[in-house]
Amino acid sequence: MNDSTEARLDPALAAGNRKALAGYRASHFLWQVQEGVATVTLNRPERKNPLTFDSYAELRDLFGQLRHATDVHAVVVVGAGDNFCSGGDVHEIIGPLVRLQAPELLMFTRMTGDLVKAMRACPQPVVAAVDGVCAGAGAIVAMASDLRLGTARSKTAFLFNRVGLAGCDMGACAMLPRIIGQGRASELLFTGRSMTGEEGERWGFFNKLCLPEHLLEQAQALARELVQGPTFANGITKTMLHQEWAMTIEQAIEAEAQAQALCMLTQDFRRAYEAFVAKRKPVFEGN
Amino acid sequence: MNDSTEARLDPALAAGNRKALAGYRASHFLWQVQEGVATVTLNRPERKNPLTFDSYAELRDLFGQLRHATDVHAVVVVGAGDNFCSGGDVHEIIGPLVRLQAPELLMFTRMTGDLVKAMRACPQPVVAAVDGVCAGAGAIVAMASDLRLGTARSKTAFLFNRVGLAGCDMGACAMLPRIIGQGRASELLFTGRSMTGEEGERWGFFNKLCLPEHLLEQAQALARELVQGPTFANGITKTMLHQEWAMTIEQAIEAEAQAQALCMLTQDFRRAYEAFVAKRKPVFEGN
Amino acid sequence: MNDSTEARLDPALAAGNRKALAGYRASHFLWQVQEGVATVTLNRPERKNPLTFDSYAELRDLFGQLRHATDVHAVVVVGAGDNFCSGGDVHEIIGPLVRLQAPELLMFTRMTGDLVKAMRACPQPVVAAVDGVCAGAGAIVAMASDLRLGTARSKTAFLFNRVGLAGCDMGACAMLPRIIGQGRASELLFTGRSMTGEEGERWGFFNKLCLPEHLLEQAQALARELVQGPTFANGITKTMLHQEWAMTIEQAIEAEAQAQALCMLTQDFRRAYEAFVAKRKPVFEGN
Repeated sequence: MNDSTEARLDPALAAGNRKALAGYRASHFLWQVQEGVATVTLNRPERKNPLTFDSYAELRDLFGQLRHATDVHAVVVVGAGDNFCSGGDVHEIIGPLVRLQAPELLMFTRMTGDLVKAMRACPQPVVAAVDGVCAGAGAIVAMASDLRLGTARSKTAFLFNRVGLAGCDMGACAMLPRIIGQGRASELLFTGRSMTGEEGERWGFFNKLCLPEHLLEQAQALARELVQGPTFANGITKTMLHQEWAMTIEQAIEAEAQAQALCMLTQDFRRAYEAFVAKRKPVFEGN
Repeated sequence: MNDSTEARLDPALAAGNRKALAGYRASHFLWQVQEGVATVTLNRPERKNPLTFDSYAELRDLFGQLRHATDVHAVVVVGAGDNFCSGGDVHEIIGPLVRLQAPELLMFTRMTGDLVKAMRACPQPVVAAVDGVCAGAGAIVAMASDLRLGTARSKTAFLFNRVGLAGCDMGACAMLPRIIGQGRASELLFTGRSMTGEEGERWGFFNKLCLPEHLLEQAQALARELVQGPTFANGITKTMLHQEWAMTIEQAIEAEAQAQALCMLTQDFRRAYEAFVAKRKPVFEGN
Repeated sequence: MNDSTEARLDPALAAGNRKALAGYRASHFLWQVQEGVATVTLNRPERKNPLTFDSYAELRDLFGQLRHATDVHAVVVVGAGDNFCSGGDVHEIIGPLVRLQAPELLMFTRMTGDLVKAMRACPQPVVAAVDGVCAGAGAIVAMASDLRLGTARSKTAFLFNRVGLAGCDMGACAMLPRIIGQGRASELLFTGRSMTGEEGERWGFFNKLCLPEHLLEQAQALARELVQGPTFANGITKTMLHQEWAMTIEQAIEAEAQAQALCMLTQDFRRAYEAFVAKRKPVFEGN
């Protein structure tokens, strides 16, 4: 879709800074790119798709690479089978952690936090498609996404306190309250109880509930809709939602004035205007 | 209502800093003041009340003047006919913008941002009465108001990405998430889709839904109720909701301790106490 | 529950810094500790449990002491009879305030603010059990709690503007918007109107509505559930919900990486892992 952009970039910049990711061969999950939409499938369905040290690290690196991708404009994250993700594997992650010392533990918690930072820093909107179990780090991955589709039977649990830990994992004490409200987030983080699909929709965690059999398809359709929009501008929307998190209103308004002026210099803005005048649907190119 | 305040002010301060706005003659919208409630009516109903460079600038200046007004204590914003506001006029705003360069574009985005800043900086609570189309800059004006009444048929669309732009317009990425939650705001800003009236009420965007035929009347009644309250204290409430946006809790508590101590020195506080003791309704004077 | 912790602390540190509060004899409310759950009962039911200068100061001091408590791991706040708390007593607080000057008024508003600071700074989760009237400072105490159970007939009113004051009392303009959203908080603070129990649940102020006759029992059961969790980690959850209030997302993620690494060094984390492996329920000890 945006190959034309690439062509106009300074060749050295393009070669060094931008890269195609459609052909990426993932080792610890499935990765598929179609029409600019990448789908990450956590794929150990017999264990409800837990994360391991390896899958954490690969996800962190891949979301980090997405900042430079030329051929991916939205990402869907889904679990194989009937569950999203059961969180850090008890045997492969929690067991080893129990034996580590402070420096190694901080190395681990920083690695998991870096996954969330990478998900927030990439310009592509991330759509989580959440069915069944969505627990621990799985709930965090859903929370760190931009949009979330759920199912009535989904169970989202920030269950850290069930394993003796605090609710402050990978940004949860900052982000969850802004999504569902401080009181509801406090309950989920202090008790570790599951949020039902219906609660999730009512509280603003899920943008919509889908039937399980249509969940992935609807998440991909939503992602495809975003990819057909002005993808450069979408990336700026994502950046500004992130940047303005702790700004004053005056700072945010000035930051948006600059960011939007930049978007007004894109061809997509002109394309939309010309399409409107010509009474046709605009075709955006992401530049 | 507050003429007595004016009388006690140092004459030079009063003359230089405070002014009556009831007699203001608006050029690009309607302006009417009754019992301390000003009503701004966007008034190009045949075009669904779009904004133009001129109406933007006049709104910005007028809301800026409200900081000094002696005779306006609440503001209602409404659209003529069955719609609130269709946003920046495609022909009168978007067409010219497509041809501008960076410095002029920033001048424009700062002007629109300055309207929101002025709406947040004036001490008067602003009540938006939203029926029908409420799109683009129109949705922003509603969002930047303090209270919002809607109708079931209202359609509020932060549709910037439909015209090739980012959702970061006039503070939307900062303010909308705090009103309806980060996940719902993300959906509206990434997709540009309309929020229905029912969604708006359920998500906390609208304080209430009204029948279209009673909308303006109920918005004005709400504004009149506020005007009969302690208007100096109301202005402090508004200021502190704004000031504390990005403070820590400790900073906010200290800021409120100072602000509330100031309000405890007003005559309105004494009036309320004396009315309570005498078992009658207090009559506030805004000082 | 955590007596074993105490035993291992350096004796001088334990003696100087940590203390048992179960035997505390309260003067201006009831204080009872059972199984690690303290219950504060505001106890002037004939007046709907108003606060006085004395009860404010004692609550502030007691919540301040909770930072050092060894035998209280959660707190329930409730009102005697069918009401939670009617706020600052009109005769015993508002009357005197009307006659004070700026320095004394600031002393008062800082004292009330210090109560909220102490409620937020203690590591114990605070559960408010709200029935009937919950007004003014009473509404603030509920708001400043971590979790809130209400009843259908509860009436929560941030009614400061009804007494001639601003809505900015004890942190309300900062905290209420993050619990129920900026638009709904604005309405409650500008109008002083009561929020019904049903609205409170729908808006996220109340975590749940209970039947009045089961309210206290359910609040205490919830507190007991928290006490059976990893109480050190719960305290960290509370601290981080507070600390991250105005951080950027990156700052929050780094802060959580450090805080969670600390929790991973506790025995409770190991206990949970070992219990999981042994297929039994973990018994936490708060260390």
